[in-house]
Amino acid sequence: MSKLDDVVKEVADEMRRMPERGEVATYIPELARVDPKAFGIAVIDAEGNVAVGGDADTPFSIQSISKVFTLTLALGKVGDRLWKRVGREPSGSPFNSIVQLENEKGIPRNPFINAGAIAVTDLILSGHLPREALGEILRFMQFLADDSTITIDQQVAASEQRTGFRNAALANYMKSFGHLDNPVDFTLGVYFHHCAIAMSCRQLAMAGRFLAQFGSNPSTGHAVVQPERARRINALMLTCGHYDGSGEFAYRVGLPGKSGVGGGILAVAPGKASIAVWSPGLDTTGNSRLGQIALEHLTHRMGWSIFGA
Amino acid sequence: MSKLDDVVKEVADEMRRMPERGEVATYIPELARVDPKAFGIAVIDAEGNVAVGGDADTPFSIQSISKVFTLTLALGKVGDRLWKRVGREPSGSPFNSIVQLENEKGIPRNPFINAGAIAVTDLILSGHLPREALGEILRFMQFLADDSTITIDQQVAASEQRTGFRNAALANYMKSFGHLDNPVDFTLGVYFHHCAIAMSCRQLAMAGRFLAQFGSNPSTGHAVVQPERARRINALMLTCGHYDGSGEFAYRVGLPGKSGVGGGILAVAPGKASIAVWSPGLDTTGNSRLGQIALEHLTHRMGWSIFGA
Amino acid sequence: MSKLDDVVKEVADEMRRMPERGEVATYIPELARVDPKAFGIAVIDAEGNVAVGGDADTPFSIQSISKVFTLTLALGKVGDRLWKRVGREPSGSPFNSIVQLENEKGIPRNPFINAGAIAVTDLILSGHLPREALGEILRFMQFLADDSTITIDQQVAASEQRTGFRNAALANYMKSFGHLDNPVDFTLGVYFHHCAIAMSCRQLAMAGRFLAQFGSNPSTGHAVVQPERARRINALMLTCGHYDGSGEFAYRVGLPGKSGVGGGILAVAPGKASIAVWSPGLDTTGNSRLGQIALEHLTHRMGWSIFGA
Amino acid sequence: MSKLDDVVKEVADEMRRMPERGEVATYIPELARVDPKAFGIAVIDAEGNVAVGGDADTPFSIQSISKVFTLTLALGKVGDRLWKRVGREPSGSPFNSIVQLENEKGIPRNPFINAGAIAVTDLILSGHLPREALGEILRFMQFLADDSTITIDQQVAASEQRTGFRNAALANYMKSFGHLDNPVDFTLGVYFHHCAIAMSCRQLAMAGRFLAQFGSNPSTGHAVVQPERARRINALMLTCGHYDGSGEFAYRVGLPGKSGVGGGILAVAPGKASIAVWSPGLDTTGNSRLGQIALEHLTHRMGWSIFGA
Repeated sequence: MSKLDDVVKEVADEMRRMPERGEVATYIPELARVDPKAFGIAVIDAEGNVAVGGDADTPFSIQSISKVFTLTLALGKVGDRLWKRVGREPSGSPFNSIVQLENEKGIPRNPFINAGAIAVTDLILSGHLPREALGEILRFMQFLADDSTITIDQQVAASEQRTGFRNAALANYMKSFGHLDNPVDFTLGVYFHHCAIAMSCRQLAMAGRFLAQFGSNPSTGHAVVQPERARRINALMLTCGHYDGSGEFAYRVGLPGKSGVGGGILAVAPGKASIAVWSPGLDTTGNSRLGQIALEHLTHRMGWSIFGA
Repeated sequence: MSKLDDVVKEVADEMRRMPERGEVATYIPELARVDPKAFGIAVIDAEGNVAVGGDADTPFSIQSISKVFTLTLALGKVGDRLWKRVGREPSGSPFNSIVQLENEKGIPRNPFINAGAIAVTDLILSGHLPREALGEILRFMQFLADDSTITIDQQVAASEQRTGFRNAALANYMKSFGHLDNPVDFTLGVYFHHCAIAMSCRQLAMAGRFLAQFGSNPSTGHAVVQPERARRINALMLTCGHYDGSGEFAYRVGLPGKSGVGGGILAVAPGKASIAVWSPGLDTTGNSRLGQIALEHLTHRMGWSIFGA
Repeated sequence: MSKLDDVVKEVADEMRRMPERGEVATYIPELARVDPKAFGIAVIDAEGNVAVGGDADTPFSIQSISKVFTLTLALGKVGDRLWKRVGREPSGSPFNSIVQLENEKGIPRNPFINAGAIAVTDLILSGHLPREALGEILRFMQFLADDSTITIDQQVAASEQRTGFRNAALANYMKSFGHLDNPVDFTLGVYFHHCAIAMSCRQLAMAGRFLAQFGSNPSTGHAVVQPERARRINALMLTCGHYDGSGEFAYRVGLPGKSGVGGGILAVAPGKASIAVWSPGLDTTGNSRLGQIALEHLTHRMGWSIFGA
Repeated sequence: MSKLDDVVKEVADEMRRMPERGEVATYIPELARVDPKAFGIAVIDAEGNVAVGGDADTPFSIQSISKVFTLTLALGKVGDRLWKRVGREPSGSPFNSIVQLENEKGIPRNPFINAGAIAVTDLILSGHLPREALGEILRFMQFLADDSTITIDQQVAASEQRTGFRNAALANYMKSFGHLDNPVDFTLGVYFHHCAIAMSCRQLAMAGRFLAQFGSNPSTGHAVVQPERARRINALMLTCGHYDGSGEFAYRVGLPGKSGVGGGILAVAPGKASIAVWSPGLDTTGNSRLGQIALEHLTHRMGWSIFGA
């Protein structure tokens, strides 16, 4: 067994024994039904070795982690024009804050807060029908993960659509500044559905591999983006990937990462590994409590921090 | 000549020809007298090789770059207790904003905005007389840079003390919450003086070397901090080192760094190099315009980005 | 001719000659078509004498002035329970600001900013169908003005419904806190339609008469509310009736009043007169430029300021 | 005995029996020593009749009530130029908020929040020595109240000067925008001292009489300001006189008024009466709890509300 296998096993064991797991998100009713004891981890190193632990093959709702992939897709479609609609700075605010939008005239701070991701979704939609755009996003995820079984959890999507008033507020607010091109309902529909994509840690680690490997996935041979773009997406994940817990994640874990309220986190050790963890209990900033601890332990033991081994 | 020598020379040449240099800071009258055409760069790699270009030996006012060193010193004195007085999140606000302080009851977001650095200075002062604390800070800088000629520019310090009303507002505001232990004038006096330390790029790159080399300076043999602490200071520089331009710096340069309104930037390529650049013209977020471009070129050509070469 | 007749005639003449009329609201396309030169005034004194000037019989879109009447209606239906959903303080913010809503967890500052009026509309709707609630509001306006010809301008309502994204943001935002009982579309539909009621200055002065006459309209003999409630609605108009121009209106005019972006203002001189003015050009706070000046002149000459004749 | 005498006696009796009195201000240590059971009231009607109840002759610290008089004095000295330094809108924020100052570039919203009153004090000081300016303010108070025994409580002033860090923050903040002409310490010194003026209800009601009587005090025969200016100061008191409790005071009491954290309130019934009440216990907005209730009862029974009897 390799060192990576050992460390992943250790971390999964430690997480199983953790008494305090945070609170499962309840703002989307469907998410509240998940088993709070679940924990999964999957790591793919530079050579393509896969190490897994816990519930690594259980699909979960990736939620905001989808924002990394929709950003990648949108940059491919519209290029740097995207940055006219969205900024690149940490927001210093919760994921669903609308204050910043008012202060900055409808331009979201970055693509990883809700408002920013809705603006990015609007750019992908760009005149198409919602189901066409959604099909494109889903196929992109299947392509990245090399797995055509990935689907959208329609119950989660429907649940979010029924209760997503805060996101509707954000979208209508941007629309009032003329910063959404499509009907608000279309953009929100696509947004709610891509957040409801269900994936396992194993699938997610595979899908994120191009970010760890300079834009290409060596397992599939797919070139996804130029190395420079992968690098820049990693930089955005580092500064903005965990809402108002981004500084803390950088401080403790030291890797670019993106969390979702479903409890998943995708993390990237550039040149070294693509990592997915999942545990549904969240801390007060909306990030997976055990997920962050697991990544802190893993990074520490593997010497993978980008800030100095 | 090594690749590093070549690249540093190239970058210095390019910067000499740049037509647009930004605006020299005028809010401290003394700073406004600096030659806007100045540009310096110094890089020290893992082996201790030093490459310099331009005005690498001209001392300039390090201003907010001093915050990295006062944070290091304060952590050595009070440990993690420091984090009760200061947060670790990017602020999403300009360097001298007071809004965030009101919203968060007098606790600054991070140690690299003015309010946070004043709080850190107060912890260093901690019952001593201002000149004692200032002596300690100056000796620490001389020790790190292995150069006892480093001094404080008293004219800059006096100029700032006469006009630093915004910083006085921040300090009094924190004091009103009981979050400064010393008299406001004492804390501000030390703060204004350590910001007025004058150093050249060469001295600054040497002083920052412990951050690039896991806590120790191989040239001097001095162990400054534990590797973990160096890593964490680097993480803070990455997320918070350039005020509300921190996301942009991470996106374009991809290195931990700390800027000052004197036009200097200290950047760290963990395991690879300590870098100091200086050019007095600033962009709208208060960061050196040419300094950032020089670092972007250098990092790109050397493949030093922490987000993937 | 009475003094009132003389003064009203004078004021109408002066307004006709005013060169600078402000900007007609364009955010609702239908409103932008109004003649910017229009000016009307109607005053009904305590004895029931009516003095009119200019375009006093031209109907205009009353817009936010409707908020005074929906507040009156809602207080009649739900009483002081209303104040659990809406505050009573000036907001210090523009009419459509959402920042205050986030800071105060979805409770609007007062019933005269958009968010507050939407919340009040939701209380009137309260389980009924939109057209039932709207019928009730319209009949209440006809009853107050003693004029069954008052109608809703369907083109303005449709125009607002197509473009009212900012109000949709406010409504969805409150809904996300559970502070709207009805479907967002229902509440907004009623809100947009009651803002689109068209009335002349003469009709409006009559409708507002109960506020000037201690709760009853002596012309019709209708008791509308208790004297105490009329007094309190007047107090709210004084402190909150002109958004972030409320202080200025109190300072210059010295009467309770409520403006609308259609250019109308209803003002109340308690015990003395009900006054309606209309001129479509607005100042930067969204209040009728000539309307305010006309009221300042009128109040001054009649000695009607509530702050000392 | 007149009706006024009866009502004042009734109100004083009711207040003596009130079980819940709010919290005495502790932020200035000296203020915390006051007897929480104290209650005083003094009313002077249009004919000059004086009705008193409770501790009407006990001096208390007038604190922010002084802002009405410094505004009057400053308007006399610099006229409408004052409004370049201070706005006229309710702030929607607590008395010591600094957020609004940052959003509006160092211009306080109105002269009755702390920042605004400091700016007004700076205009009075205007090149003079602090003790000269303070002498002028004190003599103005003595002149208005026709009582040369009024003094400054030096212990309160000293106490505030030692602990007034929040006010020092506000003053330094405005100074950083160049909006204070004098040294910060000079302006703050005068401000702290005029807030520490001690007066009884009887003295205060006399001093405020010019506001109720169209600019002149009939008892002394002194013309203080033009009628229009008295009217406008009354308007400012109505919209801004009780910080973020101003709307509530207008709603419940219906008179222009100004409160202080010492527990006093000066209220004005234009043309009818000047009223001073005092009870040290405060509500959460920093306004005298019993003082407000007493004014509500008095106004109701006398039919003095400016919004309709």
